[in-house]
Amino acid sequence: MVQGSRLKALVRDASFARLDADVQKLVGGKLLLVEHTVAEKLKSPYVPLAEMGAYLAESRGKRLRPTLLLLVSKTLGYEGDADVVYAAVYEFIHTATLIHDDIVDEALLRRGRPSLNSRWGPERAVLMGDYVFITAMHVAVTLGWSGVQPVVADAALGLIRGELIQSHRKWDLTITPKENLEIIHFKTAGLFAACARTPAFLVDAPREIHEALWDYGRFMGIAFQLVDDCLDFRSDEGTLGKPAGLDLKEGKVTLPLILMMENGTPRDRAFVEALVASRRFDPEILRELVDRVIESGMVDEAEAVARDYAAKAAKLCEMLPKGPARDVLARLPEFVIRRRF
Amino acid sequence: MVQGSRLKALVRDASFARLDADVQKLVGGKLLLVEHTVAEKLKSPYVPLAEMGAYLAESRGKRLRPTLLLLVSKTLGYEGDADVVYAAVYEFIHTATLIHDDIVDEALLRRGRPSLNSRWGPERAVLMGDYVFITAMHVAVTLGWSGVQPVVADAALGLIRGELIQSHRKWDLTITPKENLEIIHFKTAGLFAACARTPAFLVDAPREIHEALWDYGRFMGIAFQLVDDCLDFRSDEGTLGKPAGLDLKEGKVTLPLILMMENGTPRDRAFVEALVASRRFDPEILRELVDRVIESGMVDEAEAVARDYAAKAAKLCEMLPKGPARDVLARLPEFVIRRRF
Repeated sequence: MVQGSRLKALVRDASFARLDADVQKLVGGKLLLVEHTVAEKLKSPYVPLAEMGAYLAESRGKRLRPTLLLLVSKTLGYEGDADVVYAAVYEFIHTATLIHDDIVDEALLRRGRPSLNSRWGPERAVLMGDYVFITAMHVAVTLGWSGVQPVVADAALGLIRGELIQSHRKWDLTITPKENLEIIHFKTAGLFAACARTPAFLVDAPREIHEALWDYGRFMGIAFQLVDDCLDFRSDEGTLGKPAGLDLKEGKVTLPLILMMENGTPRDRAFVEALVASRRFDPEILRELVDRVIESGMVDEAEAVARDYAAKAAKLCEMLPKGPARDVLARLPEFVIRRRF
Repeated sequence: MVQGSRLKALVRDASFARLDADVQKLVGGKLLLVEHTVAEKLKSPYVPLAEMGAYLAESRGKRLRPTLLLLVSKTLGYEGDADVVYAAVYEFIHTATLIHDDIVDEALLRRGRPSLNSRWGPERAVLMGDYVFITAMHVAVTLGWSGVQPVVADAALGLIRGELIQSHRKWDLTITPKENLEIIHFKTAGLFAACARTPAFLVDAPREIHEALWDYGRFMGIAFQLVDDCLDFRSDEGTLGKPAGLDLKEGKVTLPLILMMENGTPRDRAFVEALVASRRFDPEILRELVDRVIESGMVDEAEAVARDYAAKAAKLCEMLPKGPARDVLARLPEFVIRRRF
């Protein structure tokens, strides 16, 4: 069933039920239109395109990026329909990267259902990822020129650049917090920033609004990714439905571990170095790694960094026109920080 | 070393040396600029992007699509530089699909060198294919609006659509010549058509020129693909450097085989059906298949279809402004037909 915002599914904290209700009230109708647009653009008279397109349209994610874009659009008083289309464009870019990620990671599941890769095989999954990527660009250029197309293309290019750099730095324990931030900037924060800024093009907003929205999205995206990286240490079967420590198992060195390699005890560092050298990730060893990182206090530390970015994002909302949509935008970073999966 | 046109490497027939010389004279300078643009747009301060980008820029193909676009541009008297950039855009789209094809086919070599997949592994090859795809769209939209961007996006989308349909019809001996033509239209001819038509946007040509160029490119693309499919039966180690019959080994049912399934003897049909059912492609069995298809006359038949399309393409050149560039365009389809690899 098509529903509006899915934010409420994201947090167990009851205080966010109100945030979700406010999102629904402000942009619920447009979120439904985004779902409709996504489904429409993936329709095709051709098998297997039609099947995979319908499957993707059904398997909905959090729609966090469309929600962000539509709330900004509402805040800026945009009254047309192009915001809905651009929200679908960014969701396509996000979806395309997930399809290709699942091939590379050989992931069996995505959003609780078989991944495209496991259901249709790698050949069609590679092609469908391409198709969704190009659909994003196709939709953006057939809308006609609004100046936002280069921002869309930049965001997509940056995202892939970030994944390539991350792939290159796999298993690399010498990565610095600054380098890690650069990867996050490309692979996650750029898309949030583009979503937040896009409505500024639609209403021809002044330069300072463009800049404030760009930074708002970027800071929120950084906070989002950092929390994601921390959740990988905090998670257990009960919350995320997967064991903790999976990032390192795949070679991804994230902020909590980076901080421990900088600030931890020699014993902790030696433990991690030996683990990475052996690449033997038995469940008990992974559990010990996770415990050591948590006990070092570096997950707390990384979460504090995430909170700082969330606070900076919220603060930037003061630059935007007052109103209920702005109020929700100001609460969104806090929500991103407190999510549990 | 960067060189201009590579057409002469394509044919053993000496009569085409002159075509190549004419191409050089007319668009050789711009072809060098295309190489330069491709290399520039793939430059990056980031490893492994920089390495893979340089590798791709060096491993040059035939550059048939840029040559086509630039010859049309010359014919229409376009005097700017955007034709060079769009030529690079289409070459990026073509290159991106080859990168992803090589992953799916597990191809070790591409253009005589290790494929991206075999050199950098599937993860980075998937991402680099995405990067090159999106680079095409990025370059097209950062050029500013000329009305041609939707044509570029359509061509890329059609190409992937064609590959998806082809993938779906693997091993399917019930495919008709009409369905085969539709696949070729999407996966090959659409990109040729877009290349040929693009300069019409740049000079704001009248509608009938747009249409003639579109059909010229489309017909030449169909001829190109049909010849490719025939060469798979005609090839031996001496010409293509690979054994004949590889398409069917990968499940691709092409026109010569389709025609034999329609018009061949019951014995030939039964042989093919048994082969596809068993999927046992020993070299001797593959050789027998190839011999049977050639002896049935259906490779000749498919080549005749290709010649018809090439002739239709050449005929359309009469609609274009007279001059040496038009003369070369009129000879290009014949070249495409007579190529040997």
